[in-house]
Amino acid sequence: MDQFLQAALEEAQKGYAEGGIPIGSVLVHNGQIIGRGHNKRVQNGSPILHGEMDALENAGRQPAKVYQESVLYTTLSPCPMCSGTILLYGIPKVVIGENKTFMGEEELLKARGVEVTVVDNQDCYNLMQQFIQEKPQLWNEDIGV
Amino acid sequence: MDQFLQAALEEAQKGYAEGGIPIGSVLVHNGQIIGRGHNKRVQNGSPILHGEMDALENAGRQPAKVYQESVLYTTLSPCPMCSGTILLYGIPKVVIGENKTFMGEEELLKARGVEVTVVDNQDCYNLMQQFIQEKPQLWNEDIGV
Repeated sequence: MDQFLQAALEEAQKGYAEGGIPIGSVLVHNGQIIGRGHNKRVQNGSPILHGEMDALENAGRQPAKVYQESVLYTTLSPCPMCSGTILLYGIPKVVIGENKTFMGEEELLKARGVEVTVVDNQDCYNLMQQFIQEKPQLWNEDIGV
Repeated sequence: MDQFLQAALEEAQKGYAEGGIPIGSVLVHNGQIIGRGHNKRVQNGSPILHGEMDALENAGRQPAKVYQESVLYTTLSPCPMCSGTILLYGIPKVVIGENKTFMGEEELLKARGVEVTVVDNQDCYNLMQQFIQEKPQLWNEDIGV
């Protein structure tokens, strides 16, 4: 697996081990991870810290140029909130572990010129399936259902 | 002025007094404010705590049903991140102080069935204009420019 998707998956696994929602993300600039994170709904009681948001938050305040040269890796197809954030900051490329568990706003991203790559990674998928089987209500809460 | 837009403006003024970006928001459920907040880019070094996001964060974890019965008030037209968040949680109605300073994703929201009301409030506009004149680079950073 790509080292950066692997890092995102490790974040997801960390989230799972914490009793949280196992979605992880890393923001990569010039071949370096500048922010990594995972969903913190359970851990922080947060409705906004999805994996992608946590990675961006941990990257801190960056100049527009940095986002515009970065790639966001995420284990799961990005929801409307995270997709909107990608658009706000003009992140040009997103690499997605899988979209079978949840189909995010990939079409909107593509329509706005974002390069979207879906890896269809089995480990990302299996982790989410295990989690959803164990905590279906928590998953529904996270996607506003 | 509507009491809830007034509360959002007070949040924006609080942000301005803190040296931050003066955009405020409140989430209203059944006539009660359940979350209020303002942009925390400067105060928390956060790229994700726009006013709307801070209001949702401060409302804490809520059942899907609560969001679906709520109204989000914001002093400025919501950017792609905040608009995506509105879509994620199915918030059906957004009241916007003004959109002359910045036009957010109002068309996307309407296309997805969100009721969007723009009040065109002069106090919200004047506060942003004053801020942008004083700190243009900080404003650009906030909208990814």
